[in-house]
Amino acid sequence: MTEPDGYIADRRAIGVFDSGVGGLTVLHECLVNLPHEDFVYLGDTAHFPYGSRRLADVRRLAFAAAESLIQLGVKLIVVACNSASSAALPQLQSTFSTPMVGVVMPGARAAVQATRERRIGVMATEATVLSNAYQNALHSLDAGLEVFAVASPRLAPLIQEGDVYSDETEQAAREAVGPLKAAEVDTVILGCTHYPLITPMLRRLLGPRVALINSAEETAREVGEILVRKGIGNEEGREGDYRFFASGDPEEFRQVGARFLQLPIREVGQI
Amino acid sequence: MTEPDGYIADRRAIGVFDSGVGGLTVLHECLVNLPHEDFVYLGDTAHFPYGSRRLADVRRLAFAAAESLIQLGVKLIVVACNSASSAALPQLQSTFSTPMVGVVMPGARAAVQATRERRIGVMATEATVLSNAYQNALHSLDAGLEVFAVASPRLAPLIQEGDVYSDETEQAAREAVGPLKAAEVDTVILGCTHYPLITPMLRRLLGPRVALINSAEETAREVGEILVRKGIGNEEGREGDYRFFASGDPEEFRQVGARFLQLPIREVGQI
Repeated sequence: MTEPDGYIADRRAIGVFDSGVGGLTVLHECLVNLPHEDFVYLGDTAHFPYGSRRLADVRRLAFAAAESLIQLGVKLIVVACNSASSAALPQLQSTFSTPMVGVVMPGARAAVQATRERRIGVMATEATVLSNAYQNALHSLDAGLEVFAVASPRLAPLIQEGDVYSDETEQAAREAVGPLKAAEVDTVILGCTHYPLITPMLRRLLGPRVALINSAEETAREVGEILVRKGIGNEEGREGDYRFFASGDPEEFRQVGARFLQLPIREVGQI
Repeated sequence: MTEPDGYIADRRAIGVFDSGVGGLTVLHECLVNLPHEDFVYLGDTAHFPYGSRRLADVRRLAFAAAESLIQLGVKLIVVACNSASSAALPQLQSTFSTPMVGVVMPGARAAVQATRERRIGVMATEATVLSNAYQNALHSLDAGLEVFAVASPRLAPLIQEGDVYSDETEQAAREAVGPLKAAEVDTVILGCTHYPLITPMLRRLLGPRVALINSAEETAREVGEILVRKGIGNEEGREGDYRFFASGDPEEFRQVGARFLQLPIREVGQI
């Protein structure tokens, strides 16, 4: 492609929102890959989880979150929640002029590239599975794929509560993985931002021949490509700043969030 | 993502097909980016151009071309023709087990990443524009885009005939570009494999602030990512081989094709 003339670094922050702390796994990957960018993260913890809400509800909440970030003057919004991406991304894109990136298409694309047998599993919340967003994205890239989507209503709350190594979490993971193993998929998309926290357990359950796709990683790559192609990256070499807002209890966000961000969280504003 | 165990280099060639010589611009980018891979190119020159044929016709021809490549034992097929990708890619993917990559989605993705004003132009053949393939691919990635697609029936035949610098070609290009300039697009997809040959002219007509997306380049990048993710690349360091087949006159293919490949074409088999 051609770089358009008049390139000016864009110093505005990138907005990231999620129904709670899960999207911090996406922010983590962005901080690792784009250390010179500023980020503003909004966790809609007052309304967590989105994954078991009605579609219209998720849309309304996603619109409110996007509007808050736009008022903060961001240059790009990452919808770092699979349920919100699935339920509301096209509507958000049609409404706002700020560019929006979801987590579904980047994960779907990586899975299509990776699968050899063209049999792909998706682990996600009920809302994400019922929306068919992954199924549609995958089939838009390869109409001949076999896709097996499994909803795990218990897994995200268990991980959220910190029960990452518990028997109960392993049991819930085993139940989700069962149908995917039976279907002989060779690639599994972690279609909920909480799931990367139990990657070692899932790897053990799925076996070494199954490729795990972390949508958070793929989305961070996508954000990096967008900044380059649009010419809206911040200056290289600087160290970016990141800030947090929560709609619920800031102190709880701070404490629970650090496990997801894998970095300390200092101040959290309320919004 | 996780690399699955048991990685073995896959020495099979990559198949590339097009309605004629246009797809050689895609092969060119693949040869530049993946010099260690072997390629087999099939130009269905007996049925050129696909761009003004009926949909059912294009599908039938694309199936025959894909079958010929599969019989030659390829590991991946690049549908290096915008008209065939638009008309037949989902059907090809649903029918054959060999993975297939088209040129539409890679170009669409790059354009969505590049546009700042979210106003994208597409220049293509009549068949491609009428299929809505680019419009659908673009809107699946960003539902809020404004897309302006212009069909140029004359441009591909003029470029094919070698009239790259003629007044007639400039006039045809100017006619195609006119509505895109009026629509104030900031990004234009070259949605026909012939158009990269008149990139300098298009750049002059569109002006320096418009990003030109070459689907051939984007498709070659996509092929490279697929090989890595599936773990089916050939051994690095070797120099790959490339072979040609044409359904029409091999000598004509050889002579006309060199301009598109930007490399000499030696033997051409008939198929």
